[in-house]
Amino acid sequence: MSPENRVAQLRGEIDKINLQILELLNKRAELASQIGKAQAEMGINFYDPVREGQMLQALEAANNGPFSNETIKSLFKEIFRATLAMEEHEARANLMVQRKPNQSNTVITLADGTEIGNGTFQLIAGSCAVESLEQMDEVGAALAERGVRIMRGMAFKPRSSPYDFQGLGEPGLKIARQIANKYQMFVTSEIMDASQIPMMSDYVDIFWVGARNMQNSFLLKALGKVRQPVILKRSFGATLKELIYSAEYIVSSGNPNVILMERGVRTFETWTRNTLDISAVPLLKMETHLPVIVDISHSAGRRDIAVPLGKAAKAVGADGLMVEVHPNPPVAMSDAKQQLSIPEFHQLMDALQTI
Amino acid sequence: MSPENRVAQLRGEIDKINLQILELLNKRAELASQIGKAQAEMGINFYDPVREGQMLQALEAANNGPFSNETIKSLFKEIFRATLAMEEHEARANLMVQRKPNQSNTVITLADGTEIGNGTFQLIAGSCAVESLEQMDEVGAALAERGVRIMRGMAFKPRSSPYDFQGLGEPGLKIARQIANKYQMFVTSEIMDASQIPMMSDYVDIFWVGARNMQNSFLLKALGKVRQPVILKRSFGATLKELIYSAEYIVSSGNPNVILMERGVRTFETWTRNTLDISAVPLLKMETHLPVIVDISHSAGRRDIAVPLGKAAKAVGADGLMVEVHPNPPVAMSDAKQQLSIPEFHQLMDALQTI
Amino acid sequence: MSPENRVAQLRGEIDKINLQILELLNKRAELASQIGKAQAEMGINFYDPVREGQMLQALEAANNGPFSNETIKSLFKEIFRATLAMEEHEARANLMVQRKPNQSNTVITLADGTEIGNGTFQLIAGSCAVESLEQMDEVGAALAERGVRIMRGMAFKPRSSPYDFQGLGEPGLKIARQIANKYQMFVTSEIMDASQIPMMSDYVDIFWVGARNMQNSFLLKALGKVRQPVILKRSFGATLKELIYSAEYIVSSGNPNVILMERGVRTFETWTRNTLDISAVPLLKMETHLPVIVDISHSAGRRDIAVPLGKAAKAVGADGLMVEVHPNPPVAMSDAKQQLSIPEFHQLMDALQTI
Amino acid sequence: MSPENRVAQLRGEIDKINLQILELLNKRAELASQIGKAQAEMGINFYDPVREGQMLQALEAANNGPFSNETIKSLFKEIFRATLAMEEHEARANLMVQRKPNQSNTVITLADGTEIGNGTFQLIAGSCAVESLEQMDEVGAALAERGVRIMRGMAFKPRSSPYDFQGLGEPGLKIARQIANKYQMFVTSEIMDASQIPMMSDYVDIFWVGARNMQNSFLLKALGKVRQPVILKRSFGATLKELIYSAEYIVSSGNPNVILMERGVRTFETWTRNTLDISAVPLLKMETHLPVIVDISHSAGRRDIAVPLGKAAKAVGADGLMVEVHPNPPVAMSDAKQQLSIPEFHQLMDALQTI
Repeated sequence: MSPENRVAQLRGEIDKINLQILELLNKRAELASQIGKAQAEMGINFYDPVREGQMLQALEAANNGPFSNETIKSLFKEIFRATLAMEEHEARANLMVQRKPNQSNTVITLADGTEIGNGTFQLIAGSCAVESLEQMDEVGAALAERGVRIMRGMAFKPRSSPYDFQGLGEPGLKIARQIANKYQMFVTSEIMDASQIPMMSDYVDIFWVGARNMQNSFLLKALGKVRQPVILKRSFGATLKELIYSAEYIVSSGNPNVILMERGVRTFETWTRNTLDISAVPLLKMETHLPVIVDISHSAGRRDIAVPLGKAAKAVGADGLMVEVHPNPPVAMSDAKQQLSIPEFHQLMDALQTI
Repeated sequence: MSPENRVAQLRGEIDKINLQILELLNKRAELASQIGKAQAEMGINFYDPVREGQMLQALEAANNGPFSNETIKSLFKEIFRATLAMEEHEARANLMVQRKPNQSNTVITLADGTEIGNGTFQLIAGSCAVESLEQMDEVGAALAERGVRIMRGMAFKPRSSPYDFQGLGEPGLKIARQIANKYQMFVTSEIMDASQIPMMSDYVDIFWVGARNMQNSFLLKALGKVRQPVILKRSFGATLKELIYSAEYIVSSGNPNVILMERGVRTFETWTRNTLDISAVPLLKMETHLPVIVDISHSAGRRDIAVPLGKAAKAVGADGLMVEVHPNPPVAMSDAKQQLSIPEFHQLMDALQTI
Repeated sequence: MSPENRVAQLRGEIDKINLQILELLNKRAELASQIGKAQAEMGINFYDPVREGQMLQALEAANNGPFSNETIKSLFKEIFRATLAMEEHEARANLMVQRKPNQSNTVITLADGTEIGNGTFQLIAGSCAVESLEQMDEVGAALAERGVRIMRGMAFKPRSSPYDFQGLGEPGLKIARQIANKYQMFVTSEIMDASQIPMMSDYVDIFWVGARNMQNSFLLKALGKVRQPVILKRSFGATLKELIYSAEYIVSSGNPNVILMERGVRTFETWTRNTLDISAVPLLKMETHLPVIVDISHSAGRRDIAVPLGKAAKAVGADGLMVEVHPNPPVAMSDAKQQLSIPEFHQLMDALQTI
Repeated sequence: MSPENRVAQLRGEIDKINLQILELLNKRAELASQIGKAQAEMGINFYDPVREGQMLQALEAANNGPFSNETIKSLFKEIFRATLAMEEHEARANLMVQRKPNQSNTVITLADGTEIGNGTFQLIAGSCAVESLEQMDEVGAALAERGVRIMRGMAFKPRSSPYDFQGLGEPGLKIARQIANKYQMFVTSEIMDASQIPMMSDYVDIFWVGARNMQNSFLLKALGKVRQPVILKRSFGATLKELIYSAEYIVSSGNPNVILMERGVRTFETWTRNTLDISAVPLLKMETHLPVIVDISHSAGRRDIAVPLGKAAKAVGADGLMVEVHPNPPVAMSDAKQQLSIPEFHQLMDALQTI
């Protein structure tokens, strides 16, 4: 027989085997699903590494090749993984934050009907930190003039050094609340420990979890119990998968109103403070149903590219952007290099109209 | 005297000293500039580490504090560096690729008048590699239908493994040329070694330097002698400063027509092949006068976010984008996961109209 | 005059100017130091960006070149920075954790006289998590046999997913304490929130701050008030400078007994879970006086290179290493791929004898 | 039936199905192996994405669940991948550089019998670049005094900027050769383009491929034809897998004498120039049979931690280390901060004796 004919014949045999393997895989999945249900009755978790170890040993003992034991074990581990994923999916339809087929977006509605995640582009803006009533008033007036609805009112600053300015604390929150009321805006403010929830709830409309606390599961679970929405900022060292799991901590604890914020990751590039991961926006929108906001200030760490980054954030499909604005950036107590002046803020707002 | 008054008085004294230091620094610079001119006559380079070492020793010997010797040496090294930079600037007005105040953009003009860098948004598109005449024809027809002017015609593929598909070589270039002629398009193709220049010049309108060769200074200098424009792709491990210096190798060797391409950098994130560094576009446009193109295929390594990334690239101010298109991506010989099918390419083109 | 002679003469003039600048710089520093003292009386911070901005404006107005305004401002910013550093140094002799000239190492002494940081090489070992009394007993016996003094007794596991095993909680701590008492060892256990301090203090000899909480300043400050030593693990996304500042949060809050732990950083390399930053050990020893331990389990994420990494950690000058050991790694509830079996642990201990 | 009994019964059924799947997988592998042999006769590559696409379509059409089409396709892709790997393994026993079970190390023997990779620890040392005969002589004498056998003789410096010192060229090689002959040492020198091979062969005993050329496949293939050993340096942006493939380019082109060099990767940490990836050493030794050398100069970029890094390199199992030595580092024309002075070199040599 010619090699061509031999190949054709052998391929026919492989096609038959493929279908036999398919049938067995599904039969196996069906049995595993029944085991899952029995175990759920018994209150046992699906994942049983001891059982898996025993199955792998039995397969190794029975294997005569040509596949090596390593290959066989690797293939069966994939089968185990697929089975476990199916069982977990059945039990809780995967993560609560995960987008299901045809699922609509989570839209977060604030007290006056302002919506985040409804297809419009929301601005979150304000100074890096509350420094004084005058500073907040000057910024607040500019924000109000351009229709910004959500104002930064940061009173607790997580800083690398214990000797850096750590924020004004509760007096800062009072200032933020007063200015927000004056201009009919909402306040978002960073929380650093679950013990601050009762006090901060008097002043804050949207809680903010900073990059350094993105995996503080105690805090995340506590914020699952509050009535306010939560902005969850990606850590500069975290993968997107980890960000999604952190959101799940909040949502699975009872609070469905989570807003994800991309703010750049650490890389070797030194011309920017971090590298804005713009691809994170479509990926997070695809994988979850939550609103996604881009922080164009901390990602770049420099104000001179705020306009193009803002336009990119809007074009890529984000639900809004976060930008720092200060009446006099060079003398700001933190993040002096990245805060926009008020004229620069107006330029940004103008530029965003063109997209 | 009150502390407030004492501070005011001391500040006045410091103001005077500042002006004295200023005067001395400029006097010193003037003398250094004269030395530089004398050395130029003597054919000597400006940089003289031995002389610098002697000056530092003399300063150390004379220093009585309160500044430590380390601080004094560090401050004078800054003065030396500024002086050297001034001399080099005088000699060649900094890098040739660097944008000077009020300098207009480099606009690259192809044979039929097509321009890159003139404010319009140019597409560079085509399959990852030339595989066959039929494949190239099918893609070429689609590109032509949407007015794309520059086609990928890759015949040498730099691959990590010596056993991966390495491209069709010169026969591939012939196919690319034939299809480009049929649809009146230009061909860009990757060059891997300076020895390929004469042969490739018969087929290629724009040379392409891949990420792996971005710092191959032999190749860069050789491309400074060709008449065709050169696309220079950022390495996944290179800083923007290094990319600019690599462009300078080409321009300073005689070829002013360099196009920079951002294609993502390596990070810990695994959901994308690389992390597209969108901030690179405004930074490269600000620092140089060269056109900047965004590669939305290799940066993401996945076709499902091509549309939002393409829109972001346009919004952020790039001069165009590069996208891979294949008649049947799943069977492509390379980059199967990231090439767009022809219908997906049309979706991308439609989406770009909306920005 | 010949160019050579001209250069020699000009150099003589520059030498004189250098000394004049030196004198002015030190005079300026002396004045600034007096301002600093006056400001300390007034309770004002040294750093005053408004004043700096005014000085730069005055210099710019007075500058006639040849140095550009940009260069002059850049040089004076260096002078301001050096001045500020000198003032801060005078005020608090820099960070408390920072090694001063000729300062001896911090040696941490446990209840029975066991010392960490005294030049010997201490092992911290045990399973990733407390799973059962039997597991802990089996591991404890092996550790005791090799003279290990500090045992992992992890009962709260910070996990990326809320659905992963989160540890046994207080019952796990009870088991750890019981086994530690049986084998006369000390227990170290991870704390996740300041509210756990009172409960955990009944069981734990050394608190452990995990990578995800390295910048949780609330927790760090609370651990500054406890009597137990604290192991502070570097976050996979943190610089060494940030790790040192986090240690300063604990020490400046009252607890001098901090142990730094290097555990690898996130990079693009995928054959290891993280990239062990071995250079961190000599740098941390040089910059601080604290003990430094290397975690050879989480850095590699694979057990098959534990022996060479353990030897490297000892050779590079670490004060000890941390390694995970489990009676049956493949069925461990977490970190199955990186925990050593008991025979592998004995091999590691044997190998460490040879260095 | 109780849930426990039901689970036990279902598990028995699964065990049977596991064995049936095992049998089919191996039968399938056997058929694929026969196809592979027929295709080898036909001169066809094993990988056939069109055929794979057809098989996946057939399986999708036949799938009735409970596994989703996505899961089935993913599992079969794993089977395809395992099959392909088996066929490729059969055809060429995997990569030539890959360590086979029980394979001994590649030992590279120089002209006088000096061996690299034989279990001893070899030093490669010398200045960053050849600057003058005097400088090379002074360093050469120090190296010879400590028994170093391989001297750096770099005459072509790949620099980021075209305006940085690029090396002395052939005159530099002449100096290096002269000094090496004087002290009976071997010269290693960086090659930047294949066209330099004939000229450099007159002077150089070991070719050196720098980080920027690690994936220059033209150069790698050309070095597969030379008689001298080749040092292949990992790029600061390359994975270990990519380094191994680059070595395969050289070895599969005919030159078995390749020495791998680890030199650090780019990360966000700024206190070192790169982050030395010490884990690379045991991983490369495990995966390949080639000698592995650690570059302690470029990885750290600072001389003050050379001693601990040198000790770590020896302890972790490297076959040697590379270190830069200069008679007067502060005035070196390149890499001033990282080159050891001659007294520091002697300290390093003394310290290495203690490991």
